[in-house]
Amino acid sequence: MNDLCRLSAIEAAKKLARREVTATQYLKACLARIDEREKDVRAFAHLGREQAIAAAKALDSGPVRGPLHGLPVAVKDIFDTRDMPTQGGSKVYVGHQPLTDAACLALAKHAGAYLIGKTVTTELATFPPNETRNPLNLAHTPGGSSSGSCASVADFMVPLATGTQTLGSTVRPAGYCGVIGYKPTYNLIPKKGVWADSDTLDTVGLIARNVPDAALFAAGMLRYSGLMVPDNGPGTAPRIGICRTHMWDKAAPEMKAALENAAKALSAAGATVKDLALPEGFQALTEAQQHVAIWEIGRSLAYEFFEHGNKLRPALRDRCAKAYEVKPEDYHRSIALGREYRQRVAHAFGDCDVLLTPAATGEAPKGLESTGDPSFCSMWTFLHVPCVGMPGGKGPNGLPLGLQVVGKLDDDARTLAWAHWIHQRIWT
Amino acid sequence: MNDLCRLSAIEAAKKLARREVTATQYLKACLARIDEREKDVRAFAHLGREQAIAAAKALDSGPVRGPLHGLPVAVKDIFDTRDMPTQGGSKVYVGHQPLTDAACLALAKHAGAYLIGKTVTTELATFPPNETRNPLNLAHTPGGSSSGSCASVADFMVPLATGTQTLGSTVRPAGYCGVIGYKPTYNLIPKKGVWADSDTLDTVGLIARNVPDAALFAAGMLRYSGLMVPDNGPGTAPRIGICRTHMWDKAAPEMKAALENAAKALSAAGATVKDLALPEGFQALTEAQQHVAIWEIGRSLAYEFFEHGNKLRPALRDRCAKAYEVKPEDYHRSIALGREYRQRVAHAFGDCDVLLTPAATGEAPKGLESTGDPSFCSMWTFLHVPCVGMPGGKGPNGLPLGLQVVGKLDDDARTLAWAHWIHQRIWT
Repeated sequence: MNDLCRLSAIEAAKKLARREVTATQYLKACLARIDEREKDVRAFAHLGREQAIAAAKALDSGPVRGPLHGLPVAVKDIFDTRDMPTQGGSKVYVGHQPLTDAACLALAKHAGAYLIGKTVTTELATFPPNETRNPLNLAHTPGGSSSGSCASVADFMVPLATGTQTLGSTVRPAGYCGVIGYKPTYNLIPKKGVWADSDTLDTVGLIARNVPDAALFAAGMLRYSGLMVPDNGPGTAPRIGICRTHMWDKAAPEMKAALENAAKALSAAGATVKDLALPEGFQALTEAQQHVAIWEIGRSLAYEFFEHGNKLRPALRDRCAKAYEVKPEDYHRSIALGREYRQRVAHAFGDCDVLLTPAATGEAPKGLESTGDPSFCSMWTFLHVPCVGMPGGKGPNGLPLGLQVVGKLDDDARTLAWAHWIHQRIWT
Repeated sequence: MNDLCRLSAIEAAKKLARREVTATQYLKACLARIDEREKDVRAFAHLGREQAIAAAKALDSGPVRGPLHGLPVAVKDIFDTRDMPTQGGSKVYVGHQPLTDAACLALAKHAGAYLIGKTVTTELATFPPNETRNPLNLAHTPGGSSSGSCASVADFMVPLATGTQTLGSTVRPAGYCGVIGYKPTYNLIPKKGVWADSDTLDTVGLIARNVPDAALFAAGMLRYSGLMVPDNGPGTAPRIGICRTHMWDKAAPEMKAALENAAKALSAAGATVKDLALPEGFQALTEAQQHVAIWEIGRSLAYEFFEHGNKLRPALRDRCAKAYEVKPEDYHRSIALGREYRQRVAHAFGDCDVLLTPAATGEAPKGLESTGDPSFCSMWTFLHVPCVGMPGGKGPNGLPLGLQVVGKLDDDARTLAWAHWIHQRIWT
């Protein structure tokens, strides 16, 4: 492997900006890695090799365009791209070619990034899996729905990728693949041109191999430099609440151990670490979130369900039909509960800066039949809080155990800095 | 004019379901009205005559499909439609043909509706106006951004139309044109396939000539029959808070008089009517909403701004550039303020069921250079509450003075029923 493809995005961006490495050289390293590994990993639904080469060449022949200059981005296949097909992992959209770029991709391009290809998603970013394998162990799922985005970053094919999260679709697969999955505060990254499943839950997420890279991606894209992780870190060690949540019984023993071990390591490293039990009431968010997801996903996928139902997998078709069984009063009550708890969640942190909690029940499951259980993510998605998924230990199969750092609403910049501090200390 | 096109949607739906009128007959009446008036009103960016005729014929030759059977719908030109162009009132999208239908249109079609054409929007549903005129006085604006949707419904071209609201784009033009503009609780109608301006603010709205029609449209689309206005009304007369808001000085004398007259008429009709001053603090929402709108609109329109800036009108281009001048701390503080006040707004209603407040500063302005001032709408959009715009008096030019009934979050069904009760008593 050409070592260039192992650079962090931050390191690569520095070399690219100084012209120590050309965009073309860097791309070649990424493409070589893809050529070496893609037949096994199957991260890409479409590789835009020619477009990427042309984009890199254009960047090399012009001025440095911005903080993302020369960085290739892999794009989940539910983001519209004007020069690559967008097929959503669905038979409904075979060969579908959008006419525009999603807003967040236009923003990234304006900051100097370019697109290298479209990554495999589960069917319409819901639950039925597609072909991607976990690059750390090909017999295991990479998780989903942002399957190919997490796999491609984990396997050094690209430094950065886009994802989305409706239940646990960025944070969970990032944990399974041992990379960083940053789900910002709801609506921080614009959703225009990103295919919706649930307007209340959908959040654009970013995937990278370390937290400063994810922060650079967000900062460059949004033209919001304050999101960058400061070179000298967050200033002080964070106050961390260890949050087992009402899902704790779902966690595998090794996941429970990983959280306990992380708590000890972080305490030993100087953080204030305490157990943080969420107040009574938060457990109701799980059922509420399910009502919202079922009601909204079915309606958002009305075109696919009503017009092309025979091209949907039966499990997704059944789920869409269930949307009309949710009682309106349950939907409204659930929406109201989410709104109420968004107001309460900061208080629930007590004096903690961030919470540390599992990103999944355990390692990536074996087989490709399921992308795993989103239970440990969906409440936080519903609460709209920023989450940073990361590996935090290893399980019996040698695969990562994903943890996530959960921040307060709108507190993305500090959450990223603290997440970096934590990541450095629990995963080396 | 063939009187069929003057039927309410409820009346038409009944006749269509009983086959007393065929969909083709009803469509012919609508098309005749369009043919008579469109050269003056200019409501349509694209008339899908052939597709509509084929759809009506298909409906006539099959079973009754649902509660919207046989109703033609005019669609704001930022909703994706697979068999009509979607051009967004923008030079960037001339001839643009999407490949799918927006989710809410697929839902409406499944309930038996069909599409008749695409209606003129301001440029990308922001503020620069396009060619539509107010059908009540062609020298005046119909308002915007849902200009053609409100004009076409007001002029009896169609019974129902779709709109969106980011600041005041459904409720205000409805008031200017003398029709009903229903902006539901945020996210109630799915946004998939509707072009975004601001993820925090954008809400799909519906336009009709009376409240039960708008309710039928929403109920049929969402498969949520509880939204229908009961035949015998809301049961009891509503408790109405007359809410002048901190914008009151912006209201023209005739608008102030219209609200006072409405209060008297409603009281005389048996409603409990009281003055309702919003608590201190709500006025801060206006500035906060502006920060959110400017930050988000510029980023949502990144593709258009960065890739096709020369095709945007200078005023919109300048507005997009301003997105990067909003300070992140102002954006985050504003988002947090909106979230906080969404939790407070129900309490601010006191014991009132709904509020009555202006939908605009006065009549539709003369000329087509501006679509009017959204000041009286934007706070409610930011609060995500359901609003029903309606005419509530006449101004010096004989044009309607729009008022709006504002409900509590998630309380759309009752808000619609009370809005109908109010509409019947202030506009006859």
